[in-house]
Amino acid sequence: MTSVTDFDLKAYIKARATLVDAALERFLPRGEDTLGGVGEMMRYAMFPGGKRFRPVLTVATAEALGFDAGRVMPTACAFEMIHGFSLVHDDLPCMDDDAERRGKPSCHVRFGEAEALLAGDALSLDAFRLVAANARVSDVRPDAVIRVVEELSEASGFPGMVGGQLLDIHGMRADSVSAEALVGIHRAKTGALIRGSVRAGAILCDATEPQLAALTGYAERLGLVFQITDDLLDYGEKEETASYPVVFGVEESRRLARVATEEGLDCLKGFPESAEPLRALARYLLSRET
Amino acid sequence: MTSVTDFDLKAYIKARATLVDAALERFLPRGEDTLGGVGEMMRYAMFPGGKRFRPVLTVATAEALGFDAGRVMPTACAFEMIHGFSLVHDDLPCMDDDAERRGKPSCHVRFGEAEALLAGDALSLDAFRLVAANARVSDVRPDAVIRVVEELSEASGFPGMVGGQLLDIHGMRADSVSAEALVGIHRAKTGALIRGSVRAGAILCDATEPQLAALTGYAERLGLVFQITDDLLDYGEKEETASYPVVFGVEESRRLARVATEEGLDCLKGFPESAEPLRALARYLLSRET
Repeated sequence: MTSVTDFDLKAYIKARATLVDAALERFLPRGEDTLGGVGEMMRYAMFPGGKRFRPVLTVATAEALGFDAGRVMPTACAFEMIHGFSLVHDDLPCMDDDAERRGKPSCHVRFGEAEALLAGDALSLDAFRLVAANARVSDVRPDAVIRVVEELSEASGFPGMVGGQLLDIHGMRADSVSAEALVGIHRAKTGALIRGSVRAGAILCDATEPQLAALTGYAERLGLVFQITDDLLDYGEKEETASYPVVFGVEESRRLARVATEEGLDCLKGFPESAEPLRALARYLLSRET
Repeated sequence: MTSVTDFDLKAYIKARATLVDAALERFLPRGEDTLGGVGEMMRYAMFPGGKRFRPVLTVATAEALGFDAGRVMPTACAFEMIHGFSLVHDDLPCMDDDAERRGKPSCHVRFGEAEALLAGDALSLDAFRLVAANARVSDVRPDAVIRVVEELSEASGFPGMVGGQLLDIHGMRADSVSAEALVGIHRAKTGALIRGSVRAGAILCDATEPQLAALTGYAERLGLVFQITDDLLDYGEKEETASYPVVFGVEESRRLARVATEEGLDCLKGFPESAEPLRALARYLLSRET
């Protein structure tokens, strides 16, 4: 049995992110074959990637339940494409107006604003094609795939990410956001997609309802820790917006993150050794420096 | 038996569009219950509607195969929501920059540009929730629903509508568009969603492969006639863009529309009396004045 300290999370993430990259490479349309070159833009937005955090979570959830990455890979990629679409639209002039993303010109700077709008749309629409394609993986139940279509829609759409983005642009001034509102914004804006990426993996791997509830509890804590530590890392750089350290203070934010991590790990108590990547991810997020 | 001339298409469209409106009213989130008021914006974009052409096609296809509207209604609404999302994004300043839509301020004029971008995103993402919900209609097969998820994705995404929009913004100057390019742009930009709305209805109603092929052939001609007659109606108002009368001339455009209508009706020859609404829709499009 691998002990907690023996587990090499960095190597794990690298290996799984490499699988995700290879799958995205296969699933995304070839630039030269597509109308108006939209495939080129979709690939520009998706490569090189960031941490591939959401699809790695989907894969790690499948592994916790005793399945391998291939069982959930199209859906894992779908969650990453929704994340990519949200970044393309976030960077547009009418949103954050960011000229750079991951060290290169953002999509609209490189291709034009209308083009980036449409490339983002193409990514979001294509994500659902990938979820449907997951039905062709052997032994995956069609009703599980349909349930994942709903999960992806709700995690990304009006009840989740997009709803949270709207709350966010409607007012994140540090002096006007209550603690409750801040938590609500982040639960929708970033938490819902993290939660959905875990739930999707669980549903495709025929998790029992108690397993699904436990994994959902884990994912909700993970999303919270992700946001708090993200805010702590950014603290001092962009104090104009509301964030956990601004609203709760640095020490209380750190305490909230520790409590959420413990709760998340508690949710996984009934899971076997194969859930070690999920456990290590939670511990890593609490202590991360990037 | 109802004769061709007896069939009252106007009454049929009105009755089916009323069903679609009532279903959209049920399926769309309530404005007051949603994060950032996104439900209000989604409803603003969807009501009042236009002709509800795409969902009426889905319903008429179900009827042609002996089923009623309820069998396909969530999916019919999903196609209308994708159409609505495309109009919201089309109207944005970086696209057509239209300040009005259906006699009222366009979404971004009413709510703001970032808000309209996100409301469009919410509509497109929610459309897939509705397709998934169609699995709860009794006797609808899960694998049919999954196939419809793929149809909707492909009709709307990079191989269809969004790809066609990109081709379109990359150059529709009348003096530089070939006949072949014009046909290709419209096949993707408007044709794919019309084709998909018919195919989705057929798939959910367990059409045989020959029936599906015949209905697809019908829908492809219908989409062509829709575009040609749309261009003919607009001819003289916006000659700066490429269109069928500009590229082919008015008489040849009319001839192409007549030929496509005949071909479309031929595709339906093996279908019973219940396909009369589909036939009447094809005849109507050829002779329409709005």
